[in-house]
Amino acid sequence: MSTRSIPAAHYEERLRRAQGGLPAEDAFALLIGVGADLQWLTGYAAIALERLTMLVLPAVGRATLIVPRLELAAARSSSAAEARIVDLVAWEETEDPFELVARLLEASDSRPEIQLGALGGAWGRLGGLLVSDRLWASFLLRIQAALSDAAFGLASSVLAELRAVKDAEEIDLLRRAAVAADRVVEQIVSGPLVGRSEIDVSREVRERLVEEGHDEAAFAIVASGPNSASPHHEPSRRVIAAGEPIVLDIGGRLDGYGSDITRTIWVAGDDDRSPDDVFRRLYDVLEQAQSAARAAAAPGVACQAVDAAARNAISKAGFGPNFIHRTGHGIGLEAHEDPYIVAGNSDPLTVGNAFSIEPGIYLEDRYGARIEDIVVCTESGIDELNGVTRDLIVVRG
Amino acid sequence: MSTRSIPAAHYEERLRRAQGGLPAEDAFALLIGVGADLQWLTGYAAIALERLTMLVLPAVGRATLIVPRLELAAARSSSAAEARIVDLVAWEETEDPFELVARLLEASDSRPEIQLGALGGAWGRLGGLLVSDRLWASFLLRIQAALSDAAFGLASSVLAELRAVKDAEEIDLLRRAAVAADRVVEQIVSGPLVGRSEIDVSREVRERLVEEGHDEAAFAIVASGPNSASPHHEPSRRVIAAGEPIVLDIGGRLDGYGSDITRTIWVAGDDDRSPDDVFRRLYDVLEQAQSAARAAAAPGVACQAVDAAARNAISKAGFGPNFIHRTGHGIGLEAHEDPYIVAGNSDPLTVGNAFSIEPGIYLEDRYGARIEDIVVCTESGIDELNGVTRDLIVVRG
Repeated sequence: MSTRSIPAAHYEERLRRAQGGLPAEDAFALLIGVGADLQWLTGYAAIALERLTMLVLPAVGRATLIVPRLELAAARSSSAAEARIVDLVAWEETEDPFELVARLLEASDSRPEIQLGALGGAWGRLGGLLVSDRLWASFLLRIQAALSDAAFGLASSVLAELRAVKDAEEIDLLRRAAVAADRVVEQIVSGPLVGRSEIDVSREVRERLVEEGHDEAAFAIVASGPNSASPHHEPSRRVIAAGEPIVLDIGGRLDGYGSDITRTIWVAGDDDRSPDDVFRRLYDVLEQAQSAARAAAAPGVACQAVDAAARNAISKAGFGPNFIHRTGHGIGLEAHEDPYIVAGNSDPLTVGNAFSIEPGIYLEDRYGARIEDIVVCTESGIDELNGVTRDLIVVRG
Repeated sequence: MSTRSIPAAHYEERLRRAQGGLPAEDAFALLIGVGADLQWLTGYAAIALERLTMLVLPAVGRATLIVPRLELAAARSSSAAEARIVDLVAWEETEDPFELVARLLEASDSRPEIQLGALGGAWGRLGGLLVSDRLWASFLLRIQAALSDAAFGLASSVLAELRAVKDAEEIDLLRRAAVAADRVVEQIVSGPLVGRSEIDVSREVRERLVEEGHDEAAFAIVASGPNSASPHHEPSRRVIAAGEPIVLDIGGRLDGYGSDITRTIWVAGDDDRSPDDVFRRLYDVLEQAQSAARAAAAPGVACQAVDAAARNAISKAGFGPNFIHRTGHGIGLEAHEDPYIVAGNSDPLTVGNAFSIEPGIYLEDRYGARIEDIVVCTESGIDELNGVTRDLIVVRG
């Protein structure tokens, strides 16, 4: 899939800005494999294959997209290739694509003093190559062997910051994805839920995510009863009963961009088995914590301060040890990306950052709860993309 | 998801066999990230996250599965952990998991003379570490930095051969997946197709794959008219018309194991616009080529000989340059894995190998066709898992 809502000129600008970030990292080229970095730079949503697809972007000059021959047609129809912003090179089934990468770098104007494959070259000290963070080891080890003088680093050192600031078109896509996911939550909480397996509800979530316009349903966590105490519970054959909570954490991709929302439901059943006092208290604390984190988020505020806002509220109420994960993660072409809302991350929020705020409280073997929204940092604070109520949703049937 | 059909004792045996393969590779440990290798070794179908999950399997002694704290419950419910075949170690959100890996290797009985992080240690010469092929660069570079003396290689040098030989339970799962995918093909070719967009048909395929028992629909290529000349065409808004072919290449995962079938359909429409002579000839040649490859496949036969059987039939008919990909790929927990049916692969087929046979002929900008089956190598030749006719399917509506 290609993100058609993004104008081709944006890709040209993104490539240029990525090149501009290389000198500060002592790097003279980016080597970008299949994944979100490639899609962000070129609009090419390539299939992950054991055959190498790689964008070679030197600090100076044009970018080249190396693709296996049988992906050529797909690559050609990507935004950057159609707009002739990148050159395409196809390799045949029996060729060595790693040699192609090495030859391209050899021919590049931006290399300092490359000694390809030679020992003792000056290059390791002079600069290096930045590879996409999710490039497979099978590719990286081959590239390291073909370019044994290079110092290797991660492309995120240049791209993470750029990708973390969303432009208007990206925010629009994130909003459309959030609204679609909201509708699915509303459909699911309208029931029925009692007597159905987690897997069954999870399948319904996935189907509805697609029906509501997602290209794909990426995840559909349905964690009922004691399973709600496991943040990343895999939906099981467990049958949902009255008198227990369900953590519903769902999301997918719409035109490339992610949705991700969590709501916690209490299933009361026909005989109205209401939440017990411990759960009510737990949920109240959680709601206040999530609200405190949203209130704290604004441009210039450190990511860790947003985490601390949620964590302090939970710790003060005595649930500190039960909040076992960070408060949030960035979202865009990837489900998890910068900025991470976590202790130790002193980076300040920037206008255009899109991220989740999702504290949780988990009482092992008993139950748990989590509330998650996607928000975008604005001049004045945040824009909340999800619209479903954050109050505890009590479902009858 | 966890592959419940595989008995826990199998995982113990697999771990033992993987350890047994290390000395021949001068390696003293396997470092396995999230993915099919991990699932094959432990039954743990972990979520791919930016947080490190890693199985550390030394040549001697017990395996340890390092997981982020919030994945602990999920990891615990994996087959190998439940059966206490592997030890679990959870790391906290603010810990450094790469140090954990290094410390585990330091404590391992199987290391020869490890000098962790020291320069000039003997280790690089004595042996090394094998990382899973799809381990992300963001993890590999950190591990390389933490273990700067190590020589790094790929886990596939040990695991590919082991994983390529399927046991009875795995073949049963592949067969169930193939039969489910067959049913979807039959449902789709019953029409209607004319007047619908590729995306619309692709969505129907995905829904039906899940309805027929797949955990997820992995791909649903619907390439109509000129798009059928692109082997990995991405379904578009193009509307299917009468008098053109559609390449339908679909698959998903059922209890972890893949399906993958391709059939080429001719859409004749109500006014019966039959295939033209060129297409008929192209398809006849293709069918003979696919049949020749199936006939060639047997234990001891080189993979490249199976490729050659299909390729020779196509080349003799003058379509050689139009068959632009290899003949097939292995299938199991991954959609593409060993053995690869490709020129240059002299490895002999072995009883238990499961793979695709999928020649194609593509006339650029005009149309193309492909026929794909999944087969399993048996004592006497192959077992064909798919049952849909390989004759050209002509659809009226």
